[in-house]
Amino acid sequence: MTALYDVAAIGNAIVDVISPADDAFLASENLLKGGMELIDEDRANQIYGRMGPGIETSGGSAANTISGVASFGGRGAFCGKVARDQLGEVFVHDIQSQGIGFGSSPLVGGPATGRCLIAVTPDGQRTMATYLGSAALFAPDDVDADLIAAAQIVYLEGYLFDPLPARRAFAKAAAIARTHERLIALTLSDAFVVDRHREALLGFIQSEVDVLFANESEITSLFQTASFDQAAEAARSVVQIAAVTRSEQGSVVIAGADSHLIPAVAIEKVVDTTGAGDQYAAGFCFGLSQGRSLEVCGRLGSLAAAEVIAHYGPRPQVSLKELAAKAGL
Amino acid sequence: MTALYDVAAIGNAIVDVISPADDAFLASENLLKGGMELIDEDRANQIYGRMGPGIETSGGSAANTISGVASFGGRGAFCGKVARDQLGEVFVHDIQSQGIGFGSSPLVGGPATGRCLIAVTPDGQRTMATYLGSAALFAPDDVDADLIAAAQIVYLEGYLFDPLPARRAFAKAAAIARTHERLIALTLSDAFVVDRHREALLGFIQSEVDVLFANESEITSLFQTASFDQAAEAARSVVQIAAVTRSEQGSVVIAGADSHLIPAVAIEKVVDTTGAGDQYAAGFCFGLSQGRSLEVCGRLGSLAAAEVIAHYGPRPQVSLKELAAKAGL
Repeated sequence: MTALYDVAAIGNAIVDVISPADDAFLASENLLKGGMELIDEDRANQIYGRMGPGIETSGGSAANTISGVASFGGRGAFCGKVARDQLGEVFVHDIQSQGIGFGSSPLVGGPATGRCLIAVTPDGQRTMATYLGSAALFAPDDVDADLIAAAQIVYLEGYLFDPLPARRAFAKAAAIARTHERLIALTLSDAFVVDRHREALLGFIQSEVDVLFANESEITSLFQTASFDQAAEAARSVVQIAAVTRSEQGSVVIAGADSHLIPAVAIEKVVDTTGAGDQYAAGFCFGLSQGRSLEVCGRLGSLAAAEVIAHYGPRPQVSLKELAAKAGL
Repeated sequence: MTALYDVAAIGNAIVDVISPADDAFLASENLLKGGMELIDEDRANQIYGRMGPGIETSGGSAANTISGVASFGGRGAFCGKVARDQLGEVFVHDIQSQGIGFGSSPLVGGPATGRCLIAVTPDGQRTMATYLGSAALFAPDDVDADLIAAAQIVYLEGYLFDPLPARRAFAKAAAIARTHERLIALTLSDAFVVDRHREALLGFIQSEVDVLFANESEITSLFQTASFDQAAEAARSVVQIAAVTRSEQGSVVIAGADSHLIPAVAIEKVVDTTGAGDQYAAGFCFGLSQGRSLEVCGRLGSLAAAEVIAHYGPRPQVSLKELAAKAGL
C-alpha cells in the first residue's frame, strides 16, 4: 500500500507553559534541573502559582516531532488525547494548521488537557513538571488504525509507557504497523521512564522496534551500564537503527556493523533546550521516510535541533524545509 | 495619602495568539496590515482556523503596559474582565505572578476570555483581529475603587471607549483618581477608535486627562489635521503632558511650552512590533511615578519599546529594571 503519511506519531497531547526561572526557583520547588517529573493537578497549580508569567505553546514530545516533520515538508499524522477545553482546542489547532492529520477524539467530562510547566534557566536548560491530565487516558481506542496503517513510519513516545492503557495502545499500533510492513520507531523519552519500565521497554524494543531514539543517559540506563560505548554496542544487537544524541557532541547513528558520528550544528546562543531531542527525531525520521542515507538523516536531525534550541518553545519557528535547502541537505 | 501603587491600569483583558503570516494571508482574510479590527466569535474562529500554529501569551494593551511597569520594578495594579476559563486563568496568573494587583472578578456564564489574533509578517509588522469576549463587558462595578485610589497614576486604555459601560467605568475611575489627586493618563490606542469617538474622547481628555499617549496617526486623527506639528500644538493646549510616538523616529514629549525630542533606541532586527506603544507608555509612566524628568521618562519608554519589538510577544522578556540600569537611566 502506498503511504499517505511519512510519519504517524503517538504521544502525550500537552500544552507547554514556558517561563524563565533561576536555580533558586528549581530548588524551592524541589525540581531536578534538566529533568521531567510527573505531577498531579494540585502540585501543578502550586508550582504554576509560583512561576513567573508564561508563554503557552503546544508541546508534547512526539507532537513536537511530528510538527518538525511537517516543517520539513513531510506528511504527518498524530494521535494523542486532549480534553474538550480551550487548551485542547489550541493543541488541535496547532497540529491541524500544519496540515497534520489528527486521529483521536477529545475527552469529555474528565481531567483537563495536560500541561507541562517548563522552567528555563539562564543557561538554556529546561526543567519540566508535567500534569498529564487527559493525555494519561490515551487508550487503544484512541489509535486511529487507518492513520497508522497509512504511515511509512510509526513514531512512539516513550513517556506513554507509564500508563498501562497507553502501553496497550502501543501494542495495537505496532501490530497494525507490522501488518502493513511499516517501520516502528520509539524514543526512550526520559531516563526515569527507562528506569521505571526497563524490562517491559526492552521486551517491546526487541520484538517491535526498528528505529530507537535515545540520549546518552537513556541508553546507558536501558542497558544498565555507565559506558556509552557499551550501551551503543548493546543497542546494535537489538534494533536495526539506533540514533543516540549527545547534546553539543552531536549524535551517533548505529546500524548493523556501521556507526556514523554526526556533528552537532553550532549556534550562537542556546536559549531553551526544550524540544532538542524531539526535533532531532523529526529530521531523522523525515530523512528516513525520504530514503536518505543515515548520515543525512542524522544531519537533518542536528539541523532541526539547532533551530529549536536557539529560541523559546519546542517547535520550529522557521521552515525546516528552507533551512535544509540552505544547508544543502 | 501615600500611593500603594505607582500605576493602576484599566484595559481589555486579552490573550494574544501570535502566528507568523505573509501578506497573502492578510489579503485573503481581508485584514488591514498594521491595523486592529474588532471581530465577532464566528469570524475569530474562521480566521483562527486558517492561521498557522500560534503562541499564546497574555496581552491587552494596558495590561502589557502594567506588565512593563512591573518589569521596571514599579508597583502595578490592573482592572480588566476575563471569563472563568483556562485562558482567563492564564491571564490572571501572568498579571499576579509579576506582583501586580488584580482588581476585577472573572465573568461566569457569559462569553469566553477575549482573544487577539495577531498575524506577524516577515517585516515585523503586526496585524490584529480582536474578539473581545468577556473583556467587552467591563463595567463600572469592575473598577476596584480602593486600588485606583491607591495608585499615583491611573492609566486608561482607549480601546475601552468602544463599549459604553466601559466608558462609564472610565468616568468612575477618573472621579476616584481626581478625588485622591492622582494623575490620569490615557492612551488613544488606535486611529479607528479615535475616529469612531472623536468628540467623546476630546471631551473626556479636556476634562479628565493629564497625560496623553498617542502615535502619529492617532494624534492627527484626534485633531483632524494631516500635519503632525499642528496636532502636537493642539495637544499642548488640552493636556499637561502629551507623549507622541513616531516609530523609528522616536517620540516627542510636549508639556506646557516645552517640547522634548526623544530618539528611538536602535535594535538589530525588528521581529514583532506588537506592544511597542504599550511598552513606551510603561517606561514613561514608570519614570513619571518616580519623579524623573520628562526627558528620562521618554528615554525609558524608548528603551522598553526597543526590547519588546526584538522578539515575539507584547511583554518584556528580560528585566527592564536591569536594562535601564545598564543604559545608565
